[in-house]
Amino acid sequence: MELGLIGLGKMGGNMRERIRRAGHTVIGYDRNPDLADVSSLQELVTKLQGPRVVWVMVPAGAPTQATVEELAELLSPGDIVVDGGNSRWTDDEKHAELLAAKGIGFVDCGVSGGVWGLQNGYALMYGGEAADIARVQPIFDALKPEGEFGAVHAGKAGAGHFAKMVHNGIEYAMMQAYAEGWELLEAVDSVTDVREIFRSWKEGTVIRSWLLDLAVDALDKDEHLGKLKGYAADSGEGRWTVEAAIDHAVPLPAITASLFARFASRQDDSPQMKMIAALRNEFGGHAVESK
Amino acid sequence: MELGLIGLGKMGGNMRERIRRAGHTVIGYDRNPDLADVSSLQELVTKLQGPRVVWVMVPAGAPTQATVEELAELLSPGDIVVDGGNSRWTDDEKHAELLAAKGIGFVDCGVSGGVWGLQNGYALMYGGEAADIARVQPIFDALKPEGEFGAVHAGKAGAGHFAKMVHNGIEYAMMQAYAEGWELLEAVDSVTDVREIFRSWKEGTVIRSWLLDLAVDALDKDEHLGKLKGYAADSGEGRWTVEAAIDHAVPLPAITASLFARFASRQDDSPQMKMIAALRNEFGGHAVESK
Amino acid sequence: MELGLIGLGKMGGNMRERIRRAGHTVIGYDRNPDLADVSSLQELVTKLQGPRVVWVMVPAGAPTQATVEELAELLSPGDIVVDGGNSRWTDDEKHAELLAAKGIGFVDCGVSGGVWGLQNGYALMYGGEAADIARVQPIFDALKPEGEFGAVHAGKAGAGHFAKMVHNGIEYAMMQAYAEGWELLEAVDSVTDVREIFRSWKEGTVIRSWLLDLAVDALDKDEHLGKLKGYAADSGEGRWTVEAAIDHAVPLPAITASLFARFASRQDDSPQMKMIAALRNEFGGHAVESK
Amino acid sequence: MELGLIGLGKMGGNMRERIRRAGHTVIGYDRNPDLADVSSLQELVTKLQGPRVVWVMVPAGAPTQATVEELAELLSPGDIVVDGGNSRWTDDEKHAELLAAKGIGFVDCGVSGGVWGLQNGYALMYGGEAADIARVQPIFDALKPEGEFGAVHAGKAGAGHFAKMVHNGIEYAMMQAYAEGWELLEAVDSVTDVREIFRSWKEGTVIRSWLLDLAVDALDKDEHLGKLKGYAADSGEGRWTVEAAIDHAVPLPAITASLFARFASRQDDSPQMKMIAALRNEFGGHAVESK
Repeated sequence: MELGLIGLGKMGGNMRERIRRAGHTVIGYDRNPDLADVSSLQELVTKLQGPRVVWVMVPAGAPTQATVEELAELLSPGDIVVDGGNSRWTDDEKHAELLAAKGIGFVDCGVSGGVWGLQNGYALMYGGEAADIARVQPIFDALKPEGEFGAVHAGKAGAGHFAKMVHNGIEYAMMQAYAEGWELLEAVDSVTDVREIFRSWKEGTVIRSWLLDLAVDALDKDEHLGKLKGYAADSGEGRWTVEAAIDHAVPLPAITASLFARFASRQDDSPQMKMIAALRNEFGGHAVESK
Repeated sequence: MELGLIGLGKMGGNMRERIRRAGHTVIGYDRNPDLADVSSLQELVTKLQGPRVVWVMVPAGAPTQATVEELAELLSPGDIVVDGGNSRWTDDEKHAELLAAKGIGFVDCGVSGGVWGLQNGYALMYGGEAADIARVQPIFDALKPEGEFGAVHAGKAGAGHFAKMVHNGIEYAMMQAYAEGWELLEAVDSVTDVREIFRSWKEGTVIRSWLLDLAVDALDKDEHLGKLKGYAADSGEGRWTVEAAIDHAVPLPAITASLFARFASRQDDSPQMKMIAALRNEFGGHAVESK
Repeated sequence: MELGLIGLGKMGGNMRERIRRAGHTVIGYDRNPDLADVSSLQELVTKLQGPRVVWVMVPAGAPTQATVEELAELLSPGDIVVDGGNSRWTDDEKHAELLAAKGIGFVDCGVSGGVWGLQNGYALMYGGEAADIARVQPIFDALKPEGEFGAVHAGKAGAGHFAKMVHNGIEYAMMQAYAEGWELLEAVDSVTDVREIFRSWKEGTVIRSWLLDLAVDALDKDEHLGKLKGYAADSGEGRWTVEAAIDHAVPLPAITASLFARFASRQDDSPQMKMIAALRNEFGGHAVESK
Repeated sequence: MELGLIGLGKMGGNMRERIRRAGHTVIGYDRNPDLADVSSLQELVTKLQGPRVVWVMVPAGAPTQATVEELAELLSPGDIVVDGGNSRWTDDEKHAELLAAKGIGFVDCGVSGGVWGLQNGYALMYGGEAADIARVQPIFDALKPEGEFGAVHAGKAGAGHFAKMVHNGIEYAMMQAYAEGWELLEAVDSVTDVREIFRSWKEGTVIRSWLLDLAVDALDKDEHLGKLKGYAADSGEGRWTVEAAIDHAVPLPAITASLFARFASRQDDSPQMKMIAALRNEFGGHAVESK
């Protein structure tokens, strides 16, 4: 089939390649003319035969918002927009409504896979009307990993991004689990080979996983991670997961602890711990570390 | 080689079977005569040719303590005792010293694998002197999974149980990660098929793992887990992990949150939440739920 | 001075009384004619001499929004609106802009004190332009507790509600602190008189506080809180505090733990613990509690 | 009455002074002859008329253990030993048994008050037999604050130290509550005067407390705490509180979060966050901060 693809960065470019390898026609647009097949959204729309499917793969927030609004003007009734970016699920309902008013369908799709996706396939979680999803299915089939897993119709519009967001929240806590265990093993004198312990866990254990395999890969490059700073960024989806949990009164202690550990890792000197030190000094004459 | 094996319950019995399949001779003792090959520890020791290797697979704490003390009397210099039970790592040093005073070697071994071990092999983490471990190696090789992973010499005496304990601590937080994500997905109306989302994650995602596979198996039996109570036991090793972290001033927020969630799940009516309700009532005239 | 006061419920009614006792004129409006001094917002505005100060004390969200919008139409340049309700701080900036476009000033004011306020005074945290606040100052002086504390100009528009929100977040964690300690003391056999321990802490300790006094009052009514359910509501400001922390990448582990403990207290049967039980069953053949 | 007091450091010296001011006779011993009234424990015991009361105020652990053992040899049946140090409650039962075998009574007493105690009195929590406590009561009355609060018979031997330990656990979480709130207020641009917000909370709020007063004192010395490092020690009792909770399966999320925040504050570079960074790098090609 024919697909319009907007956004040809690292992620979008690889996806174009994987879709083409599956035999589909992709017309790609990017603000960077070196990457693009057409020079404008207008041209992209013109070149696609209707009814069209246009996949948006641009940064979440304002860029996606602007692109959807522009497509609402350019596309025709019966066309479909797929938002494959990292949009917050709360944006999806608004986009679905905006497009529905013009007779245009909307599907949101959370995409996981990163740098490994081109070769191994991308995990896909999509939301929207069944009829719209059926129209996009050949593209989903091209992008997903081989085998029976890796793609799911998660629910209504927004459910795809919601599922991807929860995936990332789970990922935060799993990473934190391995990280806490690794630090504890490294802290104990009688344990002499933490890297080999991690390696041994790759088979026969309850905690074997792809993330564990990656941890071993990392330790093979730098046994005690001495070349890295204990500094971890966060990409938005962990935050949104906690906010969604608060909206629904769901307790998420492990995922939230993982998010807060990242926040704390980025502080040179913790303000709250200054206050603890100050209070200890006031009530107890405890010695505190001054600068 | 020849092995004495003490404790032939579900776990020990399967291990005897796996070791025998590998061609070794196992003489087993259990308090239950229906399971045992010999009728006493004394007989077990007599039947084994020296230098002996005796593997203890009885409940942690007092039973293991008593068995090690009895073996200290029965065995000869040059023999080796392996504690393969779920002992706390702090017991290992004491046992190693007790036996060393008699010239007997000591190896501790954390064993993971549960009901899957007989067929797939057991993950093994062992601690002790290299020479002692070399003597037990054929048994380790028989028990471990096929392939290059699943067994490790973790360090000095106690390091094997310590590594297994940390494994279980990580397991607690990984299970909690999936559980939190599952509850959040189930809480949201627009997400209509949580089980299929979990199934789709088996390939192409960052969070694919054996535990995820088990979660899908569980959901296939009972899609919304309606047949289960939200009640989770804990087996000691999660607690010890947190205590070890406290000893070493290592922050373990996610693992500890997972342990506390289990504690709370076992309370019919939370005392601390009664106090919160009481305080709200005092200061605000807030309506509280009375019995 | 003269004040218009909109919203004469439990809180607003008591505030009217305290302001009148201080010698000011209050014209009150409420949808309930039994409580109101005038029959409409229009009449309220007409009866007040300009430049007017109108204090809004209605539920946060839509009711406050509607009232502010109506006042924007009815009031004149130079008048001032004070939002004394429990509005989310993010609403304040919008209200300030809406009113500023008409030349009307805006002050937000977080009010603490509950049922104790009429007698002891209300703690006030307000935000806005210094000139506007100076105009409202006589009313703040009437409402605040006697003495030098209890009222503060916290910053720009929104800062008053933000400060009150953080006050409540701190309150959550302080309540949780006492509640955790109380549960632990009640759990230990050798401790025979937990209520008297709490009472003794009222003097000479680091943890003496008004909340502790309230805890003792509650225990005097019901020594083991046996008449209460372990069920705690939450009122929005705890959630907003965590969301604000996430927005600013500030780790709030204790406050968030306190919020999640309340969420969990309201679940009859924890979904996430069902998943933990299911996973334990899958990998270990652990006995789990079935319904 | 007459008291023997062992340990005349900052704390013990002030206590001797407060007891003497109340009209009692104190014979003090310390390893430092400049502080001591007698030159040996033997001399202390000889100078006291029987039946004797001897208060031990030396560091917890080995020093207290050694002193109790020495007293068991020196004292006579009918004498009483009071351990007023910061002993772990689990030591008390052992000491009670050791002394009971000689007919000597044992009382444990948790003491709070620090540098403020000499003037304001010390909060006391004691455990032991009622008859023994009655014998020590005049000393408790001399040490405690004026008024009806500040001293409690908490239960059996060990209950006094247990209650004091829980007091300190609560203290950890209350300090963390204020610290988190303070950091959040400092992080927000529209809030311009955090110190004055804290000051205003001293009256009329739910969160007023002695710790809040101390926080204001600290901010008056250093408004943004810029002279302090965000580094907080912990003194053992927070750790013991969490361990006691684990022993009794009581969830303590806020207190434990407070303890872990202190642990993390003392790490220059967090090992677990290195692992998070390493994993992010492996799976996503995320840019991570290298040294």
